Amino acid sequence: MKKLVNDPKNVVDEAVAGFGAAHADIVRVSLDPVFIVRADAPVAGKVGIVSGGGSGHEPLHGGFVGFGMLDAAVPGAVFTSPTPDPILAATKAVDGGAGVLHIVKNYTGDVLNFETAADLAEADEIEVRTVIVNDDVAVKDSLYTAGRRGVAGTVLVEKIAGAAAARGDDLTAVATVAEKVIGQVRSMGVALTPCVVPHAGEPSFTLADDEIEIGIGIHGEPGRERIKLEPADAIVDRILGPILDDLPYASGDKVLLFVNGMGGTPQVELYIVFRRAAEVLAERGIEVTRTLVGNFTTSLEMQGMSITVLKLDDELTALWDAPVHTAALRWGK
Amino acid sequence: MKKLVNDPKNVVDEAVAGFGAAHADIVRVSLDPVFIVRADAPVAGKVGIVSGGGSGHEPLHGGFVGFGMLDAAVPGAVFTSPTPDPILAATKAVDGGAGVLHIVKNYTGDVLNFETAADLAEADEIEVRTVIVNDDVAVKDSLYTAGRRGVAGTVLVEKIAGAAAARGDDLTAVATVAEKVIGQVRSMGVALTPCVVPHAGEPSFTLADDEIEIGIGIHGEPGRERIKLEPADAIVDRILGPILDDLPYASGDKVLLFVNGMGGTPQVELYIVFRRAAEVLAERGIEVTRTLVGNFTTSLEMQGMSITVLKLDDELTALWDAPVHTAALRWGK
Repeated sequence: MKKLVNDPKNVVDEAVAGFGAAHADIVRVSLDPVFIVRADAPVAGKVGIVSGGGSGHEPLHGGFVGFGMLDAAVPGAVFTSPTPDPILAATKAVDGGAGVLHIVKNYTGDVLNFETAADLAEADEIEVRTVIVNDDVAVKDSLYTAGRRGVAGTVLVEKIAGAAAARGDDLTAVATVAEKVIGQVRSMGVALTPCVVPHAGEPSFTLADDEIEIGIGIHGEPGRERIKLEPADAIVDRILGPILDDLPYASGDKVLLFVNGMGGTPQVELYIVFRRAAEVLAERGIEVTRTLVGNFTTSLEMQGMSITVLKLDDELTALWDAPVHTAALRWGK
Repeated sequence: MKKLVNDPKNVVDEAVAGFGAAHADIVRVSLDPVFIVRADAPVAGKVGIVSGGGSGHEPLHGGFVGFGMLDAAVPGAVFTSPTPDPILAATKAVDGGAGVLHIVKNYTGDVLNFETAADLAEADEIEVRTVIVNDDVAVKDSLYTAGRRGVAGTVLVEKIAGAAAARGDDLTAVATVAEKVIGQVRSMGVALTPCVVPHAGEPSFTLADDEIEIGIGIHGEPGRERIKLEPADAIVDRILGPILDDLPYASGDKVLLFVNGMGGTPQVELYIVFRRAAEVLAERGIEVTRTLVGNFTTSLEMQGMSITVLKLDDELTALWDAPVHTAALRWGK
């Protein structure tokens, strides 16, 4: 294992400390317990939004803390749910008196620990609502998950819910718009290589030199099938088909097309993927009106990508376009 | 070789087409010859800025085309200089009557081809000035290069020169501020793994499982030495020392600290590197007033990073902070 780390046990602490030092204009960080909050939290009268989950998916979630998106992010150990304590601490830190929304990716540990933290926060008289993101159409039930997994669509939920909170929506309204995004977003991914969790020191799975995993999870959980490597366009067709058939998306729909890198895939490859995905959508009469391309929900250094499609309407488009100022997404400010 | 590509010969064309489709609000692309220009080019009365070089370093340079940065980027084949023809075409496409600045990384092929294109443009009565970026302190003379190589510091030159052009500086003034940045920026990198050029199909060099290359070039050119893998902090110390001693940077200096990922390194590792780099600068009394962390000048899927330090003054800080709207850097708009 070759990584730019010191003691593998300290990866998250040191990365969070570095993140706080690099982005002190946007966030402040707590190292005990570990969480990242907006520099100006809590914002009085605004719904607070907290997300979190295992580390190793950066910039998710810490990179999305700031104006117009998350108020706090709670990173667990690499690929491991954060415990209730830091989630509770983050929830308290962002409570501006209007309640707090928890955005949780659908993994059993995350769901349980956020639920415990929400119960403890309610006991402290902070109103908490929770939404569960489950956009991955690859498999139903998986390693770590009952039901569908939450993957890159989470970024879109966080951006749009964050914009709703920033414009002054109350807790019910913010939760409602988050649920609307969850209802209209679907994703699926592919891995070309595994990744190595620092404290494990070896790959969590193996793939032959000519093999790829269709429907991979963001922790390397099994997908639908292993196949021989194919041209990029054929791979795109394999994963975009099930996405589009699932909702289903229909001719005339306007969508946000998001091509997400898993961490180790060069940007030229992501744009080759985008090119074909846009072509397929055009063939089906689906109009791409917003786009996002890059490493936003990663699996450490895994090579691969996922495609996410969000059906837009005027409200979601306006919330997507609204100003955001975070380390990883920034516009309009 | 596992990559998300179709025919390796078409990697650049397909990636550029995908880039144009994804960012049609910011750029338009030409595929014959291949170049990327601002959607609203040419901007009448503004100095045009063109950069370019071999593909495989994305988002450099296409990701920096847009308001407040580059007017055009000319991508060659992967790790191969663009020929004079597309450079000339891009230069003409951005000529708004105030002349054009070429920002060229110091590689022999790039320098020659930009020079030929500049001569042809001058014959067409477009005034061209050229600046050569040579920020890499690792080695003097290298594979592909006489003198120092141009690496990630190029991003800072492009941003700051772009801001100068956007505020209305004339060609001499824009070239002067670009030269000022070049005079005050230094970089050095490290590789943990090689990368594979798609049309070559195999790694351009090899590193043992416990070996890293200190002072790597962005095409995998040899650096200063190969050593056994060390903790991240020790690696940072090895490359930051020569950077700081070179200018030299001194106690009381204000700097922009830029930790650049080579493509395949997870973000947690980049922030572990940032943490130590900021610590070293603080120990030397150097104040970090601006930061940049992420994959901005990559070498395909290479694992590794580089550190860049730019000495700031009020003018450079204001130009760095000025609005920019590109695919890869965006703020204030």
